[in-house]
Amino acid sequence: MATLPPTSTGTPNTLSEDSPLLYPLFARVRLATPSDVPHIHKQIHQMAVFERLSHVCSATEASLAATLFNSPPFQSFTVFLLEVSRTPFLNPDPNPNPSFVPISRTINLDFPIEDPESKAFRIDEDVTVAGFVLFFPNYSTFLAKPGFYVEDLFVRECYRRRGLGKMLLSAVAKQAVKLGYGRVEWIVLDWNVNAIKFYEEMGAKILQEWRICRLTGEALDAYRHFSDL
Amino acid sequence: MATLPPTSTGTPNTLSEDSPLLYPLFARVRLATPSDVPHIHKQIHQMAVFERLSHVCSATEASLAATLFNSPPFQSFTVFLLEVSRTPFLNPDPNPNPSFVPISRTINLDFPIEDPESKAFRIDEDVTVAGFVLFFPNYSTFLAKPGFYVEDLFVRECYRRRGLGKMLLSAVAKQAVKLGYGRVEWIVLDWNVNAIKFYEEMGAKILQEWRICRLTGEALDAYRHFSDL
Repeated sequence: MATLPPTSTGTPNTLSEDSPLLYPLFARVRLATPSDVPHIHKQIHQMAVFERLSHVCSATEASLAATLFNSPPFQSFTVFLLEVSRTPFLNPDPNPNPSFVPISRTINLDFPIEDPESKAFRIDEDVTVAGFVLFFPNYSTFLAKPGFYVEDLFVRECYRRRGLGKMLLSAVAKQAVKLGYGRVEWIVLDWNVNAIKFYEEMGAKILQEWRICRLTGEALDAYRHFSDL
Repeated sequence: MATLPPTSTGTPNTLSEDSPLLYPLFARVRLATPSDVPHIHKQIHQMAVFERLSHVCSATEASLAATLFNSPPFQSFTVFLLEVSRTPFLNPDPNPNPSFVPISRTINLDFPIEDPESKAFRIDEDVTVAGFVLFFPNYSTFLAKPGFYVEDLFVRECYRRRGLGKMLLSAVAKQAVKLGYGRVEWIVLDWNVNAIKFYEEMGAKILQEWRICRLTGEALDAYRHFSDL
């Protein structure tokens, strides 16, 4: 599929006469707000089902609301929401924030996307939530610079393979550059060759030698009384 | 070696009559402050030399000072400093902070440690910097909880193999439990079998299937103009 550029003002995209859009899909990446928690929550659970990890997914709307949005965007846990619409976005951003101008794209589809869950992910009459990315600052001592770590990148199933995941990840990368940060990092399963190919095409290096160590559950809880030992 | 418990008040350790300490080493983990930046900087460069990565280590005292200590402890990038002394710590903490009470241990050595760089790492007449850990919050969407990610754990060479690295990492784990966090994570090189054994003994699981993806340098900078595409 082809993506068309938004206008530089962030106003609705002008469609090129050279490539008439039979079925345009207007996509926008904006900062999520507390009112988006129900949509974020539903997507986290869909991601858990997709990864066959729903038994370890204990997130609730209440626990997400309590732990997200407690800091200004980019200073701690931050969520970009991906919205799509069959009509141009008339309002630049329902919750404008000086630290981030929403990023828009128009995707030219050969046929319209049928969204079986459009009601559950509706923002308003025209706009539907199609994905999200959750990220937060990390730090490199060698660079003495912050970076961003991407914890989750999710596009709802019916909207996949149209460049929307790349749009979300690119928005994080662009913000990292804007802030003068040194890196954007995330993790991938070593057998997920399609994802690895996609990330390498985006310019990422896959670090083959490093392994994640995780202390959690009872093993972590054992350190509760550490200073009393 | 054996470690002895500190008293619960954080005052100098009482030495057990059962195990007389010929060469006690008093160790303390406390929150680092901006005045510790020169010592942190020197250790970061020692770590880079040890890892044969000094060519990619561009941290300076100025760049560290500009990027650390901009948030209250534990809300963003946080450093615990490890201090050692041949005499008990008389002052509980030079920079007391309500969010963290320093953790102390007394290590019974068979022979005194010769520190060839004691002058460069001196805090005062008695106290020397022996290591540090730099960590910051991360987030698990499945748990809907923050955790801590440990970016660097370093003990100066002459103080290694005495439980001080474990003391630093345990202090981070204890703080995670105290804050109700879900995980402590860090990374290890897959060929570093001694480190892996050490981490597993501390209760960590090594995640074998996940790989880190990193976007940095020119590949990251390419996203500067993403929204103009």
